[in-house]
Amino acid sequence: MRPYELSLAEAAQEVRARRLSPVELVDSVLERIDRVEPHLHAYVEVTAERARHDARRAEGAVDGPLRGIPMALKDLIDVAGVATTASSRVRADHRAEADSAVAARLAAAGAALVGKTHTHEFAYGLITPQTGNAWDRGRVAGGSSGGSAVAVAAGAATFALGTDTGGSIRVPAALNGVVGLKPTYDLVPRRGVTSLSWSLDHVGPITRTVEDAGLVLAALVAPGRAQSFADYPRDGDLRGLRVGVPVNYYFDHVDPEVEAAVRAAVARLEELGARLIEVEIPMTRYIQATHWGLMVPEATAYHERTLRSVPELYADDVRVLLEAGALLSAGDYLRAQRARTLMRRAWLDVLDGVDAIAAPTVPLTAVEVGRDSVTWPDGAVETVSDAYVRLSAPANIAGVPSLTVPVGQDRAGLPIGMQLMGRPLGEAVLLRLGHAYERTGAAPRLAPVA
Amino acid sequence: MRPYELSLAEAAQEVRARRLSPVELVDSVLERIDRVEPHLHAYVEVTAERARHDARRAEGAVDGPLRGIPMALKDLIDVAGVATTASSRVRADHRAEADSAVAARLAAAGAALVGKTHTHEFAYGLITPQTGNAWDRGRVAGGSSGGSAVAVAAGAATFALGTDTGGSIRVPAALNGVVGLKPTYDLVPRRGVTSLSWSLDHVGPITRTVEDAGLVLAALVAPGRAQSFADYPRDGDLRGLRVGVPVNYYFDHVDPEVEAAVRAAVARLEELGARLIEVEIPMTRYIQATHWGLMVPEATAYHERTLRSVPELYADDVRVLLEAGALLSAGDYLRAQRARTLMRRAWLDVLDGVDAIAAPTVPLTAVEVGRDSVTWPDGAVETVSDAYVRLSAPANIAGVPSLTVPVGQDRAGLPIGMQLMGRPLGEAVLLRLGHAYERTGAAPRLAPVA
Repeated sequence: MRPYELSLAEAAQEVRARRLSPVELVDSVLERIDRVEPHLHAYVEVTAERARHDARRAEGAVDGPLRGIPMALKDLIDVAGVATTASSRVRADHRAEADSAVAARLAAAGAALVGKTHTHEFAYGLITPQTGNAWDRGRVAGGSSGGSAVAVAAGAATFALGTDTGGSIRVPAALNGVVGLKPTYDLVPRRGVTSLSWSLDHVGPITRTVEDAGLVLAALVAPGRAQSFADYPRDGDLRGLRVGVPVNYYFDHVDPEVEAAVRAAVARLEELGARLIEVEIPMTRYIQATHWGLMVPEATAYHERTLRSVPELYADDVRVLLEAGALLSAGDYLRAQRARTLMRRAWLDVLDGVDAIAAPTVPLTAVEVGRDSVTWPDGAVETVSDAYVRLSAPANIAGVPSLTVPVGQDRAGLPIGMQLMGRPLGEAVLLRLGHAYERTGAAPRLAPVA
Repeated sequence: MRPYELSLAEAAQEVRARRLSPVELVDSVLERIDRVEPHLHAYVEVTAERARHDARRAEGAVDGPLRGIPMALKDLIDVAGVATTASSRVRADHRAEADSAVAARLAAAGAALVGKTHTHEFAYGLITPQTGNAWDRGRVAGGSSGGSAVAVAAGAATFALGTDTGGSIRVPAALNGVVGLKPTYDLVPRRGVTSLSWSLDHVGPITRTVEDAGLVLAALVAPGRAQSFADYPRDGDLRGLRVGVPVNYYFDHVDPEVEAAVRAAVARLEELGARLIEVEIPMTRYIQATHWGLMVPEATAYHERTLRSVPELYADDVRVLLEAGALLSAGDYLRAQRARTLMRRAWLDVLDGVDAIAAPTVPLTAVEVGRDSVTWPDGAVETVSDAYVRLSAPANIAGVPSLTVPVGQDRAGLPIGMQLMGRPLGEAVLLRLGHAYERTGAAPRLAPVA
């Protein structure tokens, strides 16, 4: 196995045992980037020199859980001395003065930065137009953290960070067959990360295994809290856990192949000892309006000045959304805030009765580039963006953690994701479930890029 | 001394020692109400029957820190079976189905409800037009908790609750020579209390002594937390405490007699051992816009339906404010939210260097009824409402606790208040300072009503 193919846990073990040097590991990933990047366009900028510098420093270091591990950061995340372009012309001349809180924590843990990955401009969209899907470059990568998910899926980074305001970690992770974790709101610091909508934004890991997601999360949280996320039972025994299976919303307007794969994965959890409990998702008809009612004005507020000074530098789709935000009233926003309060309470009530809720991450796999809408069997038509965000946004509104894990592929060979949603700060339960599921299957393999 | 003249601490001690029965105590306060209420109009409704019932129940009870103590609740606070009029015609047919969280806690502590007190309609104003000042009925009571402050000042309640969104506990407390405490945001539950602006609203006690304020606060907070507010050093020794004295904002456009009284009180704190430290108040030019930018849209959102269905039932001044709120954009509100975040951080930085900040509560004493504006010596003209709210609103924006204590009277015999502002959950420090100050002076006396 070549170093770039190793999971984070495997690579870290090889480095610790001195069977692999950080420089070899980083070089292997940089070579992989050279090979796949022309096909995938996952990166805004490959920071090869910096990665080799970080790796050499890691050679001498005695410790650090991520020592020498090659990572990619979504290009909304500040790294001192590197541009944060947010994949936007608005940021053409940008250069970050200081590390974001997460970049600083990962550097302290020993990780080596191989590059900054593409996002939908300013994270305001569910695809990443610059980037191709790792499994079929004629298909969308999903977004907005598409570059991060594709890089990890293709072996062009051992792990990556994304951000998630309505599903932007989980959607591309699911569409590219990797693991994505949106943590509990406010668990991972957002300082130094470009905001889309601050009351919904989350930073989190994209990895090839659930175990890796836990290792990255432990490095991202405040030092005193790492232990509670790193220590979960790994014996695959799920007895004593109750998994909620939605009777509404999460299986409506879902592709039959996606539904079948997720239900099979849920059955696997039951075989491992989990008790399945039907749950009713509350207030579903308010989800979309609440999500938009919070996100649209907050996004507009963030861009207020540049929208006035350099509107022409935004892509058309993003500019239109930002301009629309200026038309909303304070009352519109406050209605969304109040609905969120009620919805969050109702979700916590549901999560009182189960340890996690299992559901599809996205209702359909990666669509062909250029396809805008989906028509469901009952004749309902939905934009692809609305479909991709529909099942992931509730966890942003409620602020609860959600972990997506790959649960197979459709007939076209495209990955399918299942999300596990839990109580606030209940990440360890999700990791335990995801890890138990994962170890019953084949080892994850890289996307078959060129 | 007649029972209605006793402080809460004194009355509770007499009851505990069986030298005074709850029924005698309540009867004494009810008689006092009969005598002064025709002059003051502090009460929307006197609940004499209920008070006697509560007192008889307290006779048999073995414990309860407020056993049989006569209390008044601002008429925004729900009590099961009693109307919550909010002093508004909009609520003509209202009757609360359940106790508010605070009413339930005070009932559990043994207090007896003597009545519901007047507020500026829906708490949306800095006077209480129905109610006369306890010291001079030709002067305003202040607001919006004017009824509560006047009742306590006049001996028509042993203690009362008010609510404070920009100063509505502290302003009338200061203008009527009593103690008012706006606790840390979210420390005292707001469930069952009519909202003015939920991100700025606070419920808290109005009493005749600082010690009494601590006793009521202990009954209002979650049971496990009472101790930390009840136990503060009462020996009057302030050595080791640092008191911040503002070099800007808090003494600008302040009546010279108010300034002199507050500076004398600050000097008293120094004599008692406190170290005085000059502090600069941050971001002062954003205070008013931030306060209005949060309050106005939140108030409008709360009244959205009735404003549409029965606009004619609101008083003109309140209706105009509520209608104005509908004109604000989501961006306006979000600007205020972001300014609040920055302001709160800056305040916490200042409060890192001192244990409390001492300042005037209001820049001028109670004005004549009907007076709308004040002209300062430099020619600046300000509405009376703007003046009354100016020094108290920052503690609402920052969410920090603020305690007002009487520090003398002006030449017209009108009370002057000093506020002590502290760190979040730093109520015990404020109570220690206020109590030490208070015990150096004459015992508080009731307002000389008719």
